[in-house]
Amino acid sequence: MDMKEIALASHKVWKGKLETTAKSKVNSREDLAIAYTPGVAEPCKEIAQDETLAYTYTWKANTVAVVSDGSAVLGLGNIGPYAAMPVMEGKCVLFKEFGDVNAVPICLDTQDTEEIITAVKNIAPGFGGINLEDISAPRCFEIEERLKEILDIPVFHDDQHGTAIVVLAGIINGLRIIGKKKEDCKVIVNGAGSAGVAITKLLLRYGFTNVIMCDREGIIGNDYPNLNWMQKKMTEVTNLSNKKGTLADALKGADIFIGVSAPNIVTPEMVASMNKDALLFAMANPVPEIMPDVAKAAGARIVGTGRSDFPNQINNVIAFPGIFKGALEGRASQITVEMKLAAAEALAALVSDEELNEDFIMPEAFDPRVPEVVSQAVKIHVK
Amino acid sequence: MDMKEIALASHKVWKGKLETTAKSKVNSREDLAIAYTPGVAEPCKEIAQDETLAYTYTWKANTVAVVSDGSAVLGLGNIGPYAAMPVMEGKCVLFKEFGDVNAVPICLDTQDTEEIITAVKNIAPGFGGINLEDISAPRCFEIEERLKEILDIPVFHDDQHGTAIVVLAGIINGLRIIGKKKEDCKVIVNGAGSAGVAITKLLLRYGFTNVIMCDREGIIGNDYPNLNWMQKKMTEVTNLSNKKGTLADALKGADIFIGVSAPNIVTPEMVASMNKDALLFAMANPVPEIMPDVAKAAGARIVGTGRSDFPNQINNVIAFPGIFKGALEGRASQITVEMKLAAAEALAALVSDEELNEDFIMPEAFDPRVPEVVSQAVKIHVK
Repeated sequence: MDMKEIALASHKVWKGKLETTAKSKVNSREDLAIAYTPGVAEPCKEIAQDETLAYTYTWKANTVAVVSDGSAVLGLGNIGPYAAMPVMEGKCVLFKEFGDVNAVPICLDTQDTEEIITAVKNIAPGFGGINLEDISAPRCFEIEERLKEILDIPVFHDDQHGTAIVVLAGIINGLRIIGKKKEDCKVIVNGAGSAGVAITKLLLRYGFTNVIMCDREGIIGNDYPNLNWMQKKMTEVTNLSNKKGTLADALKGADIFIGVSAPNIVTPEMVASMNKDALLFAMANPVPEIMPDVAKAAGARIVGTGRSDFPNQINNVIAFPGIFKGALEGRASQITVEMKLAAAEALAALVSDEELNEDFIMPEAFDPRVPEVVSQAVKIHVK
Repeated sequence: MDMKEIALASHKVWKGKLETTAKSKVNSREDLAIAYTPGVAEPCKEIAQDETLAYTYTWKANTVAVVSDGSAVLGLGNIGPYAAMPVMEGKCVLFKEFGDVNAVPICLDTQDTEEIITAVKNIAPGFGGINLEDISAPRCFEIEERLKEILDIPVFHDDQHGTAIVVLAGIINGLRIIGKKKEDCKVIVNGAGSAGVAITKLLLRYGFTNVIMCDREGIIGNDYPNLNWMQKKMTEVTNLSNKKGTLADALKGADIFIGVSAPNIVTPEMVASMNKDALLFAMANPVPEIMPDVAKAAGARIVGTGRSDFPNQINNVIAFPGIFKGALEGRASQITVEMKLAAAEALAALVSDEELNEDFIMPEAFDPRVPEVVSQAVKIHVK
């Protein structure tokens, strides 16, 4: 069997990668009287007096909802809430296995922005955080922003911020090798969806000053056709000299390329036109914007992809479990930009000077220190 | 420590009686590639072609949502969604421990009927069934009926139907002892909320013909003040001779009393006015409508309560785990009245002629046969 067949057969055996398990076993009438009636009335009465005691007496303190409308799932697109379930269950498994955080997959039977916001608001009381997942842009921006305003628990769209944190960690380590200063780097972000926008924002907040976003029609500027409201907003802080042209034009003299776009759209010639010691994260999945060996042959110094079978995998799993672990442990009401920056720096710092090289800039997903350092970094920034 | 203190301390230690657990462990890159990307794309693609394959590849086949708005929790009333969480978690524990069904507590931050319906409809794709819980009457009737129309998965308000099933099981066994025919019995149901209405409906469907409902103002008939729409509907099938009067008037010459009402409202005189071999289920919690010893001294033959420290406990836990287990295993789209009747009969039949006596009419909650016979009874009625 090839990997696809194994994956399908495994899912059939699992019939769900997740289950709910009782921490309070019920083996006797006395157990029943403590965990259920009449004993359960006691924590209920306490919480009725003080809502925050839900963190003391229920699973809220350590449980997130992984919410999707199935509109932008993996590379599969708008496959709807039923077909999105295996991904959301997988995400919940990773939350538990890597972060020791309980997670419940919630796949919504609506793609209406207002209905999604209302649904998440309404299910929020039992959860300590909301991980939004695979919701298409630009709706994802409004949904997240509005929910952050409404709710007093962390709301985090992982396709945006998880990706941005891991990319920033990789760039920090790439620059440790290359020796360039962030202020001197010209950065091209190709793909202006949820990930591209969030990466750009975080790079700017980290201190990069020269970032140009591109999308299918080339460089994004004031004249780019049909920008959505978020992309328009991004033109105020990127491409400040309002350059025009193709991706190839953008890459001339660039130091860093971040691709969250489509397979095989970067040519060796484009790489050769970049500055010396170019860093490329070609994260289109499963086929990257350019294959690592091709990019290296064309002159790139460091190449990362989304794939586990090449060096330097850019993988959200090193971020989101620790992010929520820290936010929940610190009882954060929001996941702030300071937390994201601190998480990226903590991840980067996990790779020692001795380990660091062109083919090892990212910490390993299975390094047990990963969720610990990320959660600590988040926790110390809880106000 | 008394029981209340133990319950509170236990909840503090548990910090949630429930957790999510990974069935698919993730210990290697290969595990990750099968349970998450890229392997997870395979079941997603299958489900995108055929929605019903969500039952094959996700936890939908064996998972219910336990949904409450916190408006009518235990004897505590409208304590809201946060304070309702310990009860819903407890319910989820019972689903798993007794029925081997995964269950997720969803406490809603709304008590608006339309918002509740929309929220449940929107979260439904990831669940195989919806257990509504502790939602106040008469909203619970509309919410359940509307959701049954909208959704293609079972929707079951346990306060109504779970209670009705268990009460019917007890009455079936009571009549086995007493030897009266259902057609000859005058039944008084006191309390016209969710449980009282559902009990009355199920008794009528089982074949009782003479049922009178009472509430705070006495016998419910056309002239009863301020009936809600469901209570009005019930006047078409109960109290057919349109009697008027108090609960005491109703109980004169009655054979069966079902109390889902308030403490200590039935007096020894009322019991003495009932027919010979009276059966009383006094289920107000924690203090019943009349204490069993008092009722027996006044002439009652069989008395049941909601309490575990008296004989004949009327406890939903013998019904709902098996009901959903059977409905999920049979892939039922609804839980029908035939299933409820069959479940009640199966429960009653678990008490053998040798075991059956005035103080033992209900099967034990911890009898391992209970969820099995209930689920089988439900499953054979799946169309």
